[in-house]
Parts: sequence; C-alpha cells; structure tokens
Amino acid sequence: MLRPCRRPIPMKTHFEKIVIIGVGLIGGSLGMAIRDRKLAREVVGVDKDAISLGRAVAAGAVDRVEEELSRAVEGADLVILATPVGRIESLAEALSGKLGREAVVTDVGSVKEPVVAAAARRLEFPERFVGGHPVAGREKSGLGAATRALFAGAACVMTPTANTDPDALRRVSALWSAIGCRVVEMEPRKHDRIFSAVSHLPHIAAFALVTLMLGLEEKEPGLISYAAGGFRDFTRIAASSPEMWRDICLENAEEILGRIDEYQDGLESVKRMIKEGDGRGLEALFARSRSVREKLDPR
Amino acid sequence: MLRPCRRPIPMKTHFEKIVIIGVGLIGGSLGMAIRDRKLAREVVGVDKDAISLGRAVAAGAVDRVEEELSRAVEGADLVILATPVGRIESLAEALSGKLGREAVVTDVGSVKEPVVAAAARRLEFPERFVGGHPVAGREKSGLGAATRALFAGAACVMTPTANTDPDALRRVSALWSAIGCRVVEMEPRKHDRIFSAVSHLPHIAAFALVTLMLGLEEKEPGLISYAAGGFRDFTRIAASSPEMWRDICLENAEEILGRIDEYQDGLESVKRMIKEGDGRGLEALFARSRSVREKLDPR
Repeated sequence: MLRPCRRPIPMKTHFEKIVIIGVGLIGGSLGMAIRDRKLAREVVGVDKDAISLGRAVAAGAVDRVEEELSRAVEGADLVILATPVGRIESLAEALSGKLGREAVVTDVGSVKEPVVAAAARRLEFPERFVGGHPVAGREKSGLGAATRALFAGAACVMTPTANTDPDALRRVSALWSAIGCRVVEMEPRKHDRIFSAVSHLPHIAAFALVTLMLGLEEKEPGLISYAAGGFRDFTRIAASSPEMWRDICLENAEEILGRIDEYQDGLESVKRMIKEGDGRGLEALFARSRSVREKLDPR
Repeated sequence: MLRPCRRPIPMKTHFEKIVIIGVGLIGGSLGMAIRDRKLAREVVGVDKDAISLGRAVAAGAVDRVEEELSRAVEGADLVILATPVGRIESLAEALSGKLGREAVVTDVGSVKEPVVAAAARRLEFPERFVGGHPVAGREKSGLGAATRALFAGAACVMTPTANTDPDALRRVSALWSAIGCRVVEMEPRKHDRIFSAVSHLPHIAAFALVTLMLGLEEKEPGLISYAAGGFRDFTRIAASSPEMWRDICLENAEEILGRIDEYQDGLESVKRMIKEGDGRGLEALFARSRSVREKLDPR
C-alpha cells in the first residue's frame, strides 16, 4: 500500500520568491493556484516560448516574467521545474551555482527515477531537490489550457530519496497540500513502475489506436466519422502534448517496454479466445473489466 | 465515401404494432423514442429477463409486455430484434411462420453480415428483413440506462441486400429518421469492416488494458488508485455489456482478428522507437494522433 504523508501541515507554507520554469498547462495552473492562495510573495515565470511568457502575466499565472534564467532565480527560495522531463537535467545544470544554499528545487514530471538522479548529479546542493508529480492533466496543453482548479483533490506524489533534506521535502509538500492536493510519498522507482501502468501505457495504447485509425481513414475515407463514444474517448487521451510524451517514453523506457509487452500478451489471449470461439472466456474477461469502475472513487 | 440515404422521408412513418424483443439499453431507449413521437399505435415488449420486462411499462419503454413470443408478435407490422447479436438467428427461426407477409423485421446489432445472412436463412419472408445498426450506446447497459434521447443526432446504418424489399427498407429508415437519426446505407460486409475499426477494436483495446490493470493491482494493491484521466476513460469503455461484446467478437471474428493484428503492429513500432531512442519518431507519431480530433465533429 502507498503510504500517505501523515506529517501535520507545518505553519509556514509561504515562500518569498517562487520561480516557475515552463509556464504551460502544469506550470501555469500551479502559478495561478499559488497566487490565489498568496503562498508566495512573488511568482516569477520563465519559458523558452516567448508567446506563453508574454501571456503569463495577463493570465494571472505569474506576477512577472524573466527571459534570463540567472536573473530569474536570483534570491529565489523555491524553483519549480515544469518542463517536459527531458529538459530537467540540462536545467539542473544551468541552475548549478546560481542558487543559494537554502533554495529548494522541485519538479512536476511524470517520470521520477532518472529525473531525481539527474538533479542530484547536476545541482550544487542535491539534498535540496525534491522530486514531485502532481497527478493532474488535461487533453489540452500549454498556458491556454491552464486553470486554477487543476490540482484540487488531485494526488501529488513526492519522491524523496535517502539524501533529500527533510526540511525541503516538508516545504514542498506543504505547498501542494495548501493548493488542495492529497500528498503521498513514494520511492522514485516505485513511482515509475506504477505510473508506467496507470498512465504511460494507457496513453501509448491510445496513441497507437488513433494512429492506426488515421491510416485506415486514408484507405477508407469517412471511416472515422462513424466513431462513437468508445473511440472518441481515445482521441481525447491521444491529444496530450507530443513533447511531454516523447520525453516520458524515453526517460521511462524500460518500465514502459515491459508494460507494452504485458498488454500485447493480453491482446494475444483475447485473440486466442476469439479464434477458439471461447464465448465463455470472452464473457468472463469482459465481465471482469467491468468491475474496475468499483475500484475507482466516483468522480 | 459512405452514401447518405437521400430518399425523401415518406408520409407514413407510423406502424400499428411494434414489437421490441430485448428491452435493454437500445430496445428500451427505442421504445421510449417511438412512444414519445407516437410512431406506433402500440409498442409491445418481450424480454427473457422478467425483471426488465416488469419495469418496461413503468419506464415508459413499451405500452405493454408479453412473455410469450407467438402471442407478442401476433398482428405486428414491425418486429425489432434488440438482443445481443448471437441470439438473432434463433429468434429469426422462432419468428418464422408467426408473422404476416407484410410484417417487417429489423435488428439493431453491431455486426451485420452474419446477422443479415442468418435472418435470410431463417425467416419465412427474408425480403422483409432490414439490417440496422444505430450508432449509439452508453457505458451502462440494461433498461435502467435507457433514455429517450439516446438516438438524437446519432447515425443509423441500414444494411439492405439485393433481396431486401425497398418498401421494408423505406419504412424502417423512416422510423429511425423520425426519432432523430442520420440514416445511411452500407453493404453489410463494409459495415462490419468499418465498425471492427472504429468500435470493436477500441472496446477490445480497453477491455485488455483494464484486465491488465486489474492483474497489476493484485500484485501492487493501491496501484489503480493512482489512475488519472487517461485510464478512467478506458474503464468507462470497458464497462459495456459483456454478453453483447462476447457476441460481437464471435460474430465479427475475422475482421476483429485482423484489426488486433494491425494494432499489435502499431504497438511494435512504438516499442521499436522507444528501444532505439527515436525521440523524433515518437514526437511525430504523437503529434499526428493529436490531429484526429479535428476530423471528428465537435460533440
């Protein structure tokens, strides 16, 4: 079982200066939530995309923006890395030497083991890095999709290691709690194993299905117009950010490859039942799948 | 391209006595829609499930019920077969000799080629059978999930053959038009090919994914509680009726097996890109999937 974080919420949830690097769906929504609750004296945004950055203040995601990383993080007591996970290592490297000893660094990526390792390798004070993953998202990406309620009621997984400074962990956890998340702690490797199953594989399954359908539509124009509810749900999933999913696939490759194998085994057994005309087996399989909805809290 | 049915809506959309065999989600919703619009003088329900049958009148799905098939269809001018597709052939056989020459028989099944063939083989007047498939459904099944608006704006595919009586086709098409469907015509085999792609495969992909997740949850209790949007969409699809999907898999076996193969090929190529660290290929694949939502009418 996953161990909920039972520490009492500390008195101090405030930061002086929070810098959010990557003001997209997650970074932007987080900025809005922090500003709404006045959890920082100021929130500064940095983004390589000038257009997002230009809109971030008007959208209420940040108090101000900076184009230059060194200047942005000057005097920051919390830096939040909210880019696709493939950029975390180079960002950590770029931050090294620019932060004070007290500054905390965290991230919001969907893969943790390599990210946490890379941060430890690159940051000057690795003990002040806290891996994090708010389990929230939308089919749309970018600042335009950001919303202040994105994290309300969501789980946020913190992945400290033996080297993580307990004070840094406590402060980041308190921030997520304060914006309405259910904070849990998990080892980075366990996080990646669990999320390869409940998140990464479903996205890849949807991407593969939608890609197939696009190919079939080319051979038989109009085919997709007959799609009803089932396939439409897949297209929603498959509309997530390509850059983000590229990085997730590459960073969590080993776990994901194992999950795809398991999925293919499952498809093989459906095929076998169909070939053998095993109606009883198919019905039992389908009846069992139906039961999963009872395991999920109603939403 | 699929050819829309361009016939003008005929004056007469009414029937004297419509018998619906199988008063579940589709049969029940259809009964409600027909009664709302007064498209028949009476709607009679038949179901092997005594509980559904008992509730059908109170739910407004039918005017009255009959337990005995022969008595139910006496004097009927339209009989609608709304059971899982595996029962169509035996029902057609049971109806043979019990219907007048003018009575029309239709169905609502998600597989057409074998159903249309079975009906032709078993019914006394095969030319009065019209295959039909309203492209509507919900994740819930049974009469309790029936709703009078289920078919509003949905496509309804009619699959006449060279032997189908044009009058029978016209009358059934007019009924579906009158309850708000966009009626299209298609050859039975083409229907099964298209729906194996846009409906049957997505359901099987979801069933297989959910089954895998249930197995992983057993090894790592709590795992499923971390599922966010993506996996939840799958569980909705996988909650569809097990009997219905068993029959679809068995009746449309050949097309479905081909689709699963194609899907597995797609998963193989994702695996290959991950193994080779082909970030550019992954990003292109994911970006392409995203484009499919533009091809679907907004809902």
